[in-house]
Amino acid sequence: MNILRIGYLDCLGQLTVVGDISKEDFSKRFEFIKYHSDSYHPYVITDEADKIVAAGTLLIEKKFIRNLGTCGHIEDIVVDFRQRGKNLGKILLQALKELAIELGCYKVILDCEEGKVQFYEKCGFKEKGRQMAFYK
Amino acid sequence: MNILRIGYLDCLGQLTVVGDISKEDFSKRFEFIKYHSDSYHPYVITDEADKIVAAGTLLIEKKFIRNLGTCGHIEDIVVDFRQRGKNLGKILLQALKELAIELGCYKVILDCEEGKVQFYEKCGFKEKGRQMAFYK
Repeated sequence: MNILRIGYLDCLGQLTVVGDISKEDFSKRFEFIKYHSDSYHPYVITDEADKIVAAGTLLIEKKFIRNLGTCGHIEDIVVDFRQRGKNLGKILLQALKELAIELGCYKVILDCEEGKVQFYEKCGFKEKGRQMAFYK
Repeated sequence: MNILRIGYLDCLGQLTVVGDISKEDFSKRFEFIKYHSDSYHPYVITDEADKIVAAGTLLIEKKFIRNLGTCGHIEDIVVDFRQRGKNLGKILLQALKELAIELGCYKVILDCEEGKVQFYEKCGFKEKGRQMAFYK
């Protein structure tokens, strides 16, 4: 499967800057993610033509707190703007949450803009705190 | 070095529930973290008696966005309540931020309670969004 050709980066490009990534560099990162498949769980939704129209990743973190607990981080959720209003975001979130539970996570967290709080509440999440960021 | 004896879990226990962890289970998790030392970077500050008085972890995430960017997640920051007011939190954050930059992170993020926003602002972070959580 050529994940580049089926629009993974096109889809992510609707979330933020993706950049000009060579096929070789993409493949290296793809192999890294595959090799670390206990930590990285990228999920996608494809359309009838097998083009990716929604994407999101569950990152697994092993902690010492909470009885050596496992925490799930949901990252880089995006739905193709041409496919919005079809509940794809909610379906994706539900799948990632179910996977997190299956993998033993005691909690699943994500960060979002203030304007997206309501959407995530509809997906069963509750506002917990503030996201702080430092950019290089 | 026996990290259990030098108070790692005692320190983390001031952040949240740690639970009753056997020496064997702790060692297994410790070995896991060591084995995944490209992803997990736990930092501690010790006192004169080599007891851990502050702790925090940098978790490295490899992304597809931002030119196959690397994101640093700062997790489980805690300072022993008997050692507060000595700037240990700030020193720890600074060290974790520097490590993140050294490891090529384009951003470093963390989640905190609303009441801690000001502290993290003093550490060079800016409020970026909301943290949403789902608990099993």
